[in-house]
Amino acid sequence: MKKTDVLIIGGSASGIVAAITGKNQYQDKSFLIIRKEKDVLVPCGIPYIFGSLESSTFDVISDDKLKNTGVEIMIGEVVAIDCTNKVCMTAENEEIGFEKLVIATGSSPKIPRGIKGINLENVFTIPKNKIYIDGILEKLKDAQKVAIIGGGFIGVELSDELNKKGKAVTIIEILPYLLNTVFDEEMAVKVDESLSSRGVKVKTGMGIKEVTGESKVSGVILQNGEKIEADMVFLCTGYKPNTELAYKSDIEVNNMGFIKVDEYMRTDKKDIFAIGDCAENRDFITRKIITPMLASTACAEARAMGLNLYKLSTVKTFNGTISIFSTVIGDNCFAVAGITENIALKEGFDIVTATFQGMDKHPGKLPGMHTQIVKLIVSKDSGVILGGSISGGFSIGELINVIGLAIQNRMTVNSILTMQIGTHPFLTAPPTAYPFIQAAEIAAKKIKKS
Amino acid sequence: MKKTDVLIIGGSASGIVAAITGKNQYQDKSFLIIRKEKDVLVPCGIPYIFGSLESSTFDVISDDKLKNTGVEIMIGEVVAIDCTNKVCMTAENEEIGFEKLVIATGSSPKIPRGIKGINLENVFTIPKNKIYIDGILEKLKDAQKVAIIGGGFIGVELSDELNKKGKAVTIIEILPYLLNTVFDEEMAVKVDESLSSRGVKVKTGMGIKEVTGESKVSGVILQNGEKIEADMVFLCTGYKPNTELAYKSDIEVNNMGFIKVDEYMRTDKKDIFAIGDCAENRDFITRKIITPMLASTACAEARAMGLNLYKLSTVKTFNGTISIFSTVIGDNCFAVAGITENIALKEGFDIVTATFQGMDKHPGKLPGMHTQIVKLIVSKDSGVILGGSISGGFSIGELINVIGLAIQNRMTVNSILTMQIGTHPFLTAPPTAYPFIQAAEIAAKKIKKS
Repeated sequence: MKKTDVLIIGGSASGIVAAITGKNQYQDKSFLIIRKEKDVLVPCGIPYIFGSLESSTFDVISDDKLKNTGVEIMIGEVVAIDCTNKVCMTAENEEIGFEKLVIATGSSPKIPRGIKGINLENVFTIPKNKIYIDGILEKLKDAQKVAIIGGGFIGVELSDELNKKGKAVTIIEILPYLLNTVFDEEMAVKVDESLSSRGVKVKTGMGIKEVTGESKVSGVILQNGEKIEADMVFLCTGYKPNTELAYKSDIEVNNMGFIKVDEYMRTDKKDIFAIGDCAENRDFITRKIITPMLASTACAEARAMGLNLYKLSTVKTFNGTISIFSTVIGDNCFAVAGITENIALKEGFDIVTATFQGMDKHPGKLPGMHTQIVKLIVSKDSGVILGGSISGGFSIGELINVIGLAIQNRMTVNSILTMQIGTHPFLTAPPTAYPFIQAAEIAAKKIKKS
Repeated sequence: MKKTDVLIIGGSASGIVAAITGKNQYQDKSFLIIRKEKDVLVPCGIPYIFGSLESSTFDVISDDKLKNTGVEIMIGEVVAIDCTNKVCMTAENEEIGFEKLVIATGSSPKIPRGIKGINLENVFTIPKNKIYIDGILEKLKDAQKVAIIGGGFIGVELSDELNKKGKAVTIIEILPYLLNTVFDEEMAVKVDESLSSRGVKVKTGMGIKEVTGESKVSGVILQNGEKIEADMVFLCTGYKPNTELAYKSDIEVNNMGFIKVDEYMRTDKKDIFAIGDCAENRDFITRKIITPMLASTACAEARAMGLNLYKLSTVKTFNGTISIFSTVIGDNCFAVAGITENIALKEGFDIVTATFQGMDKHPGKLPGMHTQIVKLIVSKDSGVILGGSISGGFSIGELINVIGLAIQNRMTVNSILTMQIGTHPFLTAPPTAYPFIQAAEIAAKKIKKS
């Protein structure tokens, strides 16, 4: 029987980070990653394969770093876990013994139920699978009209990329706005506008009745009866955790299908951990279970887990998930960290909100200047920042991490008022009107008045 | 006699922020800014007037926000302060009574002593003065060869901008590298390389012997005798605080010429504050007096001061300066926050340093990908981050603020290991190899081993 000290099932972002962090921390232990795929794709890069990257080859994660760190890689599938005897069984009937097991099996596209025509030719999902993606790319050459069902991040990013390649794209979302689960209305409106202004047809507040076609897809019929022609349809309707293996191995899975874990990412079985999309996430602020499915979250979990594999540390726990996303439509960028106003109100937080609109370069006449809007969600009694969202130019990808770090440190608006920043004409807002600080000032004023 | 509740002397960045913050906090008080200049320039934008902006008009700060906030503006010069009777005297012999006085008189170019030819025609400094800058622009039309003396931020940025406009630029710095007072050698080398690769002649490790010419400048002679032809010479040899007024009004000035202030930006005279370039700065880490002269620092001081004008707050103090700078040469960007390795060693800190080189987009094949290098300076006993520097693409302007916030919160490398971030293919490094976190990991490993 093959033996390893640490066995990691799954070779995407969280598996890689877990292996490297763990191996660096515990150098005398052997680490083995077992994964199904020969080539692992950069998960967040997948929508960009269809436009900016032009080939899936450019989106493959090299195995060099794993190999250089001394992590062994095996292509295969674990089909059963014997939690008591600490042995995994592969599809090829091979047994692998372990001291510690890390389940990082990720997620797969969720396919909506009860919609006719969903199995027609040229109806695709977006799995993290190079061979499948290459198949789409091949078929895409002959497609002109594309319908994208689902206005989450994958749907929105895929729309923009296919539009860049000259396809006629329609995106359909059942909620009132695109990205409506992650942004408050006023920001989501801007997402819709950005995508529309670039020539993508945006149909929101409307579900799908049927996918039409004989053997091959010919279009989509919306719930209001409207017909949209399409040579190709993408189902971008979310992802479900890959937890069948855990479930059938008697590892506790919550009622949403995620593997239950604690702050050290431990499952209910001794020496078995779970991280990434397949593991349960608890919101940093609301303490409710959430389903962010972000590679960045997965990597943070993997780092915390990797450090705690053999010896627990009280300073390196994962104390709840701060969802931090960013996305790009053309040169309009959107980002959010922590909770939105919608969620804060729904959860019953006593809050104030504050929004400041400024510019991302200074003076504003510099070429490439972009409006920057920062909205903060702040606890009224403590002044602690619960969430922030931004629209702006490319700099907001890191600016949202400034806000994320403030949330993680439970910083108050008062501490932001005297926050020290660096500014530069080409790189940031002016120091006299830095939107994050300005929004904090507005929030502080509202709290004072109340 | 004219009377105001709060009188602010100086209308640049810190004066503006002090007035607006103060007025917002204390709305029943009257605020008056007195300044010499009709038009105030965005200070950090000044080098960009010579290239990207093309006119000083585009670098003027509008008075609208001050006026809308209810701040009065007066053009004039205060020539004496009667600290006991709380009255200022202007050059026009007008008296202005005040309850609180804020000195925000800024800084002026420092002119090196004992260099022959420094008063020749076409030898300029870079003051924050629109009329003077417009004069340079007029003369610049006929100049082809430009010599810039001093390789600090102004010199470097001015070189790059004049080079963009097709001038033949030589920059001369007495230290071994450009920006050598703010960056450690390995980063400063990259600054030199970036500017050289764009066609600017970089002469470092060499001072000026003489500026040559009859009535008009014809060139510069270096200390090694080398002659550099020039139709125009800029002295970018630093700035000195404008504190003559404070000094002669018996307000305490330190031996470096800065007005002494406490954590609320109060001078030694009751109800008189000082902020910005003219006020003393104490380093957040070393506690030594430093001279950053940054608009962003000035604005942070102004906010803290504005909030504490009438009532002191224990949560809104200015607890020492974290110098945070960023700059751009073409599309190569450089930034630093906190202290460098040089300074840490000089001050006697027991440190480890860690450097990680990654990429600022992911996958790396995305158009516009730029190498990103993060270096951290970490206290060995506590793991607290003392400083960080970055070279990379445009996103580092906000990334340095992530590091700055970590320094301000006295965060340790351990807390960075489980830091949650947002990542996006076009906007950030990959979540699996985010250079700031990777550098923290290397530092943590070094500390553990030691």
